[in-house]
Amino acid sequence: MAPRSAAQRGTALLQSAVVGATGYAGFELTRLLLRHPRMKKPLLLSREGAEAGNLDDAYPQIANSHGSGNGSYPLEPFSWEALAARGVDVLFLSTPHEISRAWMPEAERRGLRVIDLSGAWRLRRAENRAIYKFEDADAVAAERLMQHAVYGLPEMHAAAIADAQIVANPGCYSTSVILGLVPLARGGWIDREHGVIADSKSGVSGAGKAPTQKTHFVEVADNLSAYNVFAHRHTGEMLEQLGLESSELTFTPHLLPIPRGILSTIYVRLAKPATVAEIHAAFRDFYAASPFVRVFAPGRLPQIQHSAHTNFCDVGFTLAPDGRRLVVVSCLDNLLKGAAGQAVQNMNLMFGFDEREGLQ
Amino acid sequence: MAPRSAAQRGTALLQSAVVGATGYAGFELTRLLLRHPRMKKPLLLSREGAEAGNLDDAYPQIANSHGSGNGSYPLEPFSWEALAARGVDVLFLSTPHEISRAWMPEAERRGLRVIDLSGAWRLRRAENRAIYKFEDADAVAAERLMQHAVYGLPEMHAAAIADAQIVANPGCYSTSVILGLVPLARGGWIDREHGVIADSKSGVSGAGKAPTQKTHFVEVADNLSAYNVFAHRHTGEMLEQLGLESSELTFTPHLLPIPRGILSTIYVRLAKPATVAEIHAAFRDFYAASPFVRVFAPGRLPQIQHSAHTNFCDVGFTLAPDGRRLVVVSCLDNLLKGAAGQAVQNMNLMFGFDEREGLQ
Amino acid sequence: MAPRSAAQRGTALLQSAVVGATGYAGFELTRLLLRHPRMKKPLLLSREGAEAGNLDDAYPQIANSHGSGNGSYPLEPFSWEALAARGVDVLFLSTPHEISRAWMPEAERRGLRVIDLSGAWRLRRAENRAIYKFEDADAVAAERLMQHAVYGLPEMHAAAIADAQIVANPGCYSTSVILGLVPLARGGWIDREHGVIADSKSGVSGAGKAPTQKTHFVEVADNLSAYNVFAHRHTGEMLEQLGLESSELTFTPHLLPIPRGILSTIYVRLAKPATVAEIHAAFRDFYAASPFVRVFAPGRLPQIQHSAHTNFCDVGFTLAPDGRRLVVVSCLDNLLKGAAGQAVQNMNLMFGFDEREGLQ
Amino acid sequence: MAPRSAAQRGTALLQSAVVGATGYAGFELTRLLLRHPRMKKPLLLSREGAEAGNLDDAYPQIANSHGSGNGSYPLEPFSWEALAARGVDVLFLSTPHEISRAWMPEAERRGLRVIDLSGAWRLRRAENRAIYKFEDADAVAAERLMQHAVYGLPEMHAAAIADAQIVANPGCYSTSVILGLVPLARGGWIDREHGVIADSKSGVSGAGKAPTQKTHFVEVADNLSAYNVFAHRHTGEMLEQLGLESSELTFTPHLLPIPRGILSTIYVRLAKPATVAEIHAAFRDFYAASPFVRVFAPGRLPQIQHSAHTNFCDVGFTLAPDGRRLVVVSCLDNLLKGAAGQAVQNMNLMFGFDEREGLQ
Repeated sequence: MAPRSAAQRGTALLQSAVVGATGYAGFELTRLLLRHPRMKKPLLLSREGAEAGNLDDAYPQIANSHGSGNGSYPLEPFSWEALAARGVDVLFLSTPHEISRAWMPEAERRGLRVIDLSGAWRLRRAENRAIYKFEDADAVAAERLMQHAVYGLPEMHAAAIADAQIVANPGCYSTSVILGLVPLARGGWIDREHGVIADSKSGVSGAGKAPTQKTHFVEVADNLSAYNVFAHRHTGEMLEQLGLESSELTFTPHLLPIPRGILSTIYVRLAKPATVAEIHAAFRDFYAASPFVRVFAPGRLPQIQHSAHTNFCDVGFTLAPDGRRLVVVSCLDNLLKGAAGQAVQNMNLMFGFDEREGLQ
Repeated sequence: MAPRSAAQRGTALLQSAVVGATGYAGFELTRLLLRHPRMKKPLLLSREGAEAGNLDDAYPQIANSHGSGNGSYPLEPFSWEALAARGVDVLFLSTPHEISRAWMPEAERRGLRVIDLSGAWRLRRAENRAIYKFEDADAVAAERLMQHAVYGLPEMHAAAIADAQIVANPGCYSTSVILGLVPLARGGWIDREHGVIADSKSGVSGAGKAPTQKTHFVEVADNLSAYNVFAHRHTGEMLEQLGLESSELTFTPHLLPIPRGILSTIYVRLAKPATVAEIHAAFRDFYAASPFVRVFAPGRLPQIQHSAHTNFCDVGFTLAPDGRRLVVVSCLDNLLKGAAGQAVQNMNLMFGFDEREGLQ
Repeated sequence: MAPRSAAQRGTALLQSAVVGATGYAGFELTRLLLRHPRMKKPLLLSREGAEAGNLDDAYPQIANSHGSGNGSYPLEPFSWEALAARGVDVLFLSTPHEISRAWMPEAERRGLRVIDLSGAWRLRRAENRAIYKFEDADAVAAERLMQHAVYGLPEMHAAAIADAQIVANPGCYSTSVILGLVPLARGGWIDREHGVIADSKSGVSGAGKAPTQKTHFVEVADNLSAYNVFAHRHTGEMLEQLGLESSELTFTPHLLPIPRGILSTIYVRLAKPATVAEIHAAFRDFYAASPFVRVFAPGRLPQIQHSAHTNFCDVGFTLAPDGRRLVVVSCLDNLLKGAAGQAVQNMNLMFGFDEREGLQ
Repeated sequence: MAPRSAAQRGTALLQSAVVGATGYAGFELTRLLLRHPRMKKPLLLSREGAEAGNLDDAYPQIANSHGSGNGSYPLEPFSWEALAARGVDVLFLSTPHEISRAWMPEAERRGLRVIDLSGAWRLRRAENRAIYKFEDADAVAAERLMQHAVYGLPEMHAAAIADAQIVANPGCYSTSVILGLVPLARGGWIDREHGVIADSKSGVSGAGKAPTQKTHFVEVADNLSAYNVFAHRHTGEMLEQLGLESSELTFTPHLLPIPRGILSTIYVRLAKPATVAEIHAAFRDFYAASPFVRVFAPGRLPQIQHSAHTNFCDVGFTLAPDGRRLVVVSCLDNLLKGAAGQAVQNMNLMFGFDEREGLQ
């Protein structure tokens, strides 16, 4: 296994590899790794039968100069041997969850440190995983591996992430909802019996790059739709991280006619009456050491534009005059704090870098 | 006062007048009146100091042929005498609420039948009106007039609308939320102690045509924002029509990056466990005679596109497996069922026409 | 063959059939036919292996009341026998051009009157057709049929359309560019040696409903792109209808981040200096009897919003102070005047109805 | 005057000041200066009667952590004394052109190095300036100053920019059109008698932050419009930089429904037949030393998304089979290469930094 601290490595640059660089999250990740001061140029790998060619063919915006067609970012066929031969320190899987689920045991065996952006390894409780219908070749090994994997939300699990071999990067919706609620959950503010409602709205890049009827421009533009009500895969992450029962959280995702960004409007009944100052303090204190959560001053609410193209999760709130009903608004960029940015933040923690490196 | 039924009038066409035809709702209204089979060409009136010229200058799309500059839709200066001289049967006020509030007493004195699209005359309870800060010249007269005005939601008050002299056309958000809830409220399905949450998202035309920083394209595009949390003017209408107390309803409006349409996601805890069939029946039965509410079959939810450019309010729902948590989704076009279309629907009822006339 | 005039038919309603009703143009067409006062409810037919079910499943907005799931618009399997059994008077093909090309000979043999929305039968000159790579079973028959087919642009060919058995409904770009130029071409105003440039921008529905990478929301939003430069299929129609040689017209289509609408900016060098009044007269005179072309007054230019959701093509212009350089701006709704609306306009002419029937 | 080379200054950081930081271009500029490795935190100055408060109130996205309301970016009242007291090395004016025109003589007298983002000092020829209607207190002094000012397009005037005291930062449209044409103009490829057509499309941020009817979301969304045909202020810059006469260039700007980005489609008749390789070489050679122009390989055209959020101008082309008609497509981000990014690029040249510093 690669040395776990920057001190151990000295000033040598790390080598990363990315599988799935042509997807929206994979591309953002590659872009971040390319300008990360501690990293060599990432190795881009393609799965058999999937994308090939050069990344700058698909995304001319990545080319440094003289435009596309210069072949600077070739995709190479994936193999475990290639990873070893190139001395890869950290492997990013930006792959469908079936692939991540299937490949991870071999990665673990080889001692690779892996950050997985899919939903394959985020869920401890079997009932929350059922929706994924995983078919594991070795269910016992998968279960054991699952107990080693760390849920990669730095604001909650920084220490465990630093030591982790396998990091399960959180879902975009989950990050937004959990960060809007965890200070309240930890502080005992939530009237759990009453239940929590998270009404989330996401830009279309969250649905992935593969063209579908649902993501056709004409179907999305001038529209808004709710989907997967009471049945979205990310719900389980929210429950596990917040310590809630299934009946205590209602989560409704919506598809917004914008390319990127999530806004979650979260409704909480407080367990006891509170003042604005108390709620503000609960958020400020919890995130005092978190460089990527911005707690908005009372009277102001975050908007999607504020955190777009950044790794910030912005959190604000409004308290009803009765001091009992609380509306929390949480925003982030689903491709950055909701995916690739968070993955780099996790990598920074895993290798002893400053958490903010390459993310500002 | 004009004859109240079509029978009284025979086949003669009615004369309408519109104040505020250059606003977004006023323009939609004018467009509907122009093609209404029972109506003469509407008289378009401008307030002193406000818009003038021809409507087809501002909206070339309304011209029949040979484009703009043909002056077919001149705005004339408003005066009570002009209304009388032209034999106006029905006056539409698509004006700021201050104007509607100030003008209505004179309109009532003159026996005019008026449909007011502003918030001036919708609210019976003083505490719900406080947010408007009305300054009435004669508060006693205003209060008396208020008790005569009918809340123009045909699905609830068709009989009263038919007889009304003054109709207060509902707010766009209010229509969406009330129609999503009233079958449940009337059926005793709502656990009122638990409270109801209405998370609404609206297109920008709902904010009016006057340019502001908030409606600048660059501020709205690629964005979503919540606003006026616990403090939106339409909340009072919802409370009064649904028979809820202020503490029992949380309403959060959001500004969507689309020109028109509202989607409300409404969260209800049921007073007793229900089946999908029971909830569906509650909606179907309540709206059995309502031509402009479409109740979606279980398993399907309305989207903003479905009702855009129509006078329909679409309602669908998803019930949690526990049979207690219910998510209702309600969609409409804020300029039609949320404003101008509903105003014409009210006019149809007031003059004994088929409710659907001119709206399909 | 069906009687060709309304007089022959008396007041009986016509029966239409639509193949391809689930596409964007096919759906608009169905919507128009449903509310056309001279038409019965259209028969909706599905090709083998293609769409099935009910149209209101795909487009709940079409349902009259009580929402989706009421099965009011079933698609039936296509067969020639079904057409005959149902007494179909007019067949609309909103199908891929390969299908239209293959099916038309049989339709002609059966004496059916057909309006084809594809590019299959629009082009007389072989060199303009090459780009389609048609593979005809019987090339001689196809060529003969081609000479019978009428190019369905009512502003140019109304008389021929009235008598036609086969109408080739024009392309959306072609309609926009031809209507912006034909009065100038006919009046000898164009300096042909100098050449004409048509820079067109289209909404995404023009690319069809099938999901592709190019029409993915994230690829289109916040973007603009030129495509098929010097190589777009519609160019041939423009050349043939305007009487230009290939070297005399440069046509560049662009993909706009909007659902519908086309704006063409057309650059002409005049053969001799002109005044604004002369150019305006050239357009006004040419379109004096054309109810669906609106010529804008000098000083005003059409915008996409003006003609959206209408069957109008709007035309305006600006003349340079030198009196030689002319910029024409032409706008239309690609699904209406650019496809379905024009098809209905053609049908009106074919059956002796008022050209505007069902289109206002 | 401040030392003109990095060598003279050693490693000391420079102090900049920005007037107009709350506009769209001014904000982008501030954001760039904040992360520029050679620059101190910029001094933000407000004009009397204009914006005040903190920049992070208007743009919470700029806050480093803990959101808005932390007052980290206060605007201070502008005065010449404040500039002197704070040792300002470079002054950026992101102000209306009237202000830039009025203030510049004093700035020059004080020996300040200034980069002006307005149109005040870009035009040498009086006939091209007429459209601005400048009212100079001292016309002789203004004319003399005008002859000192350098047009800040680094790809053309790098040496003069390095020595300049006053840099007139080019217009956004002008940058796009000039960079798409200058290699052809310099190489004698353009048939000037035939004339050039530039059909440009711009996002809305180019119209500024002040709310107007034209920039209202509902007026822009789902729309496209041409404006100021034969009458746009940027035309003069194109003429002067490309050495064309007024009759030789037709420029048509359009307003796109996107926040940022420009695409110009440029039509040139070549003076002699060319091959694709020749045209490609003309562009590649001209921009060989220009880090911020990307010449696309033949067969690929740039799109607005490719250069969005970068300082690149992307240029591609398609040549007609006849070898005479050429379509050039040029894209840039109007707030970066079209304004703030170019201003920083100019600053880098003026102070001897690497041209790319702070821009990647």
